[in-house]
Amino acid sequence: MAARPRRPIVTFITDFGTKDQYVGVMKGVILSIAPSAAIVDLTHEVQVHEPAAARFLLAQSWPYFPKGSVHVAVVDPGVGSARRPILVEAQGHVFVGPDNGVLSDLIARPKAKTRHITNSRLCRSTISQTFHGRDIFAPVAAHLARGVPAARAGPLIDDAFRAASDAPIRTGRRTWIGSVVHVDRFGNLITNFAAADFPDITARRFELSVGLVKLIELQPSYAAGPAGQPLLIIGSSGNLEVAVNQDSAAARLGCATGSPVDLEMF
Amino acid sequence: MAARPRRPIVTFITDFGTKDQYVGVMKGVILSIAPSAAIVDLTHEVQVHEPAAARFLLAQSWPYFPKGSVHVAVVDPGVGSARRPILVEAQGHVFVGPDNGVLSDLIARPKAKTRHITNSRLCRSTISQTFHGRDIFAPVAAHLARGVPAARAGPLIDDAFRAASDAPIRTGRRTWIGSVVHVDRFGNLITNFAAADFPDITARRFELSVGLVKLIELQPSYAAGPAGQPLLIIGSSGNLEVAVNQDSAAARLGCATGSPVDLEMF
Amino acid sequence: MAARPRRPIVTFITDFGTKDQYVGVMKGVILSIAPSAAIVDLTHEVQVHEPAAARFLLAQSWPYFPKGSVHVAVVDPGVGSARRPILVEAQGHVFVGPDNGVLSDLIARPKAKTRHITNSRLCRSTISQTFHGRDIFAPVAAHLARGVPAARAGPLIDDAFRAASDAPIRTGRRTWIGSVVHVDRFGNLITNFAAADFPDITARRFELSVGLVKLIELQPSYAAGPAGQPLLIIGSSGNLEVAVNQDSAAARLGCATGSPVDLEMF
Repeated sequence: MAARPRRPIVTFITDFGTKDQYVGVMKGVILSIAPSAAIVDLTHEVQVHEPAAARFLLAQSWPYFPKGSVHVAVVDPGVGSARRPILVEAQGHVFVGPDNGVLSDLIARPKAKTRHITNSRLCRSTISQTFHGRDIFAPVAAHLARGVPAARAGPLIDDAFRAASDAPIRTGRRTWIGSVVHVDRFGNLITNFAAADFPDITARRFELSVGLVKLIELQPSYAAGPAGQPLLIIGSSGNLEVAVNQDSAAARLGCATGSPVDLEMF
Repeated sequence: MAARPRRPIVTFITDFGTKDQYVGVMKGVILSIAPSAAIVDLTHEVQVHEPAAARFLLAQSWPYFPKGSVHVAVVDPGVGSARRPILVEAQGHVFVGPDNGVLSDLIARPKAKTRHITNSRLCRSTISQTFHGRDIFAPVAAHLARGVPAARAGPLIDDAFRAASDAPIRTGRRTWIGSVVHVDRFGNLITNFAAADFPDITARRFELSVGLVKLIELQPSYAAGPAGQPLLIIGSSGNLEVAVNQDSAAARLGCATGSPVDLEMF
Repeated sequence: MAARPRRPIVTFITDFGTKDQYVGVMKGVILSIAPSAAIVDLTHEVQVHEPAAARFLLAQSWPYFPKGSVHVAVVDPGVGSARRPILVEAQGHVFVGPDNGVLSDLIARPKAKTRHITNSRLCRSTISQTFHGRDIFAPVAAHLARGVPAARAGPLIDDAFRAASDAPIRTGRRTWIGSVVHVDRFGNLITNFAAADFPDITARRFELSVGLVKLIELQPSYAAGPAGQPLLIIGSSGNLEVAVNQDSAAARLGCATGSPVDLEMF
């Protein structure tokens, strides 16, 4: 069982947006069960119906929260169908969401335990076919955040859906092909090249290609490059990131989530 | 007097958006009076100056909060004019806002008590003509959430503004005309047909028309229909809802808030 | 040292938007250090890379929070460059952010103390070159909100960057030229003319020009003017504000942040 923080913490990552009542309603459900909870919106603007986008944002966020935090991820185009509601205990945190790949990265962690949520006593008394965030995920998360053992939610399973890896693919002895996994508000292109997997990139010659641009050195900060020129940096995610000082790399380079990124090390 | 939850809860529903300082300022006022309060944003993206839109979203939200919660609704094109600031005690909750119809549904509830907020000691010492959210509604809500009796806010009134009903109109023995009352972020068309008012819709033949589409059966979930086809569902609001599996019904059908919806039961 | 509120309060004003994980991550850092903190989003939609816009919104917000609150302002195009992280103790509050002008107004306050944040023990153990919000500003703010004395953060400095004043400029005995400093969600044009600096504006004849419009009297409320006509009002900020009853003054007058505003008093 995960450690319990001094105050129950529940985070949300969804594609619900903020113009409807959906997020507020889930918070009402949380506060009804765990009145002292701190509720944190990671984001509600995940691209609609894209579990992969939520996976990236969740991976970037949960490590900064105290152990015992409960993270709810609801990007759930299959709500009401046969896909199961699940929870994952991993790294001292608990993750709650649909079994559609959004929690894949956690399921794959060493010692992770995945459970099918079957205990209706931890859910709302009536479960709609269209809003499991309100009727299953939020109440289960609130109970877990208060200290209800995860084992109470349901049985262990070992066949949860595992999304395809989105790590770069090695295409030769010195070459890899990866992609842009996220474009942030500033237009920075975050790639799936984790700098930690290429420890000698700071010491060796390399060439990284994205759009029509080739980059051959790392800069220490966004402000290091000349204004308007693309630059390469190890971003706050720990991944290689293509940016333009005081401008949008996405707009300048015509790139988006999914754009290919080639790396060659010399 | 409403029950008091273990922790003061104040919710907000406004048309203030989130790019200005208005919402943050109201939260500062709340925390100055009720430091332990949980403050929940239902939404700040109500269509500007449309109390009717706020009414729908509020009706969908407050029942999921604990009794004793205080709900502030500020969609207030008449701020600073003769319209009164009011509060409504109903169903164990308290609602605070302008007397312009935004709280109509609550005023009409059995045993509801409506009061004109006149006690300036519960307000900020200076009251602007342009921002009653900050100067009246937020401080009154914070005091109520802390347990100040609603009767202290001002006298009972029985002439509060009542907005026109937005229920469907019966046009024949077997026919009703209603409308789309909300389009959510996913493009789902939420109608004003409450499924509970048509209990035999699951057993009888019917035809519901919206845009150029006629729907003749209920689906159990969004995922039940073929991708790209309109389907009818009882949404999480309890109302009939027109959706398109993994797409926007609003875009596909060319419908928006206010679009007419016809129902015929056979 | 600032007073300490009954519950630690940390506010944020950034240009980070809400679609990425950046804001959520900062909140995780805060809650790891100050679990009971109330965290308030003033706004995350400051125009990207515009410290001046953040300065206006911050000035409008912090006075409504209890003394001892800690306000974090991160609009930081120079992150990772030579610009220093600083804090300012002023008016019983503490302000944390980059030394790029965003905190200028506070630095200029009587008895304000400005410090260079140098104590790495109050920061995250690894400091990235791209996300000081997460690695420096959030953890320092959390420690201060919990009661760590500001003097522990680093030495006093007297050479912090001071942005140019954005007060109106007197151009003659009876004439001033100012500007629109903010356009809010409703399209209201907030000018930099503080009504308190022109105490006799309610008593004397004047003419205020913006776009192609000349306004010669103050209205008591937005609703006071005829629908569709520009009107002048003392806004909730205390500044002169140009509005259109139930419409956008920015759209009607073709004005934006930076548009010139002329005032002549007779």
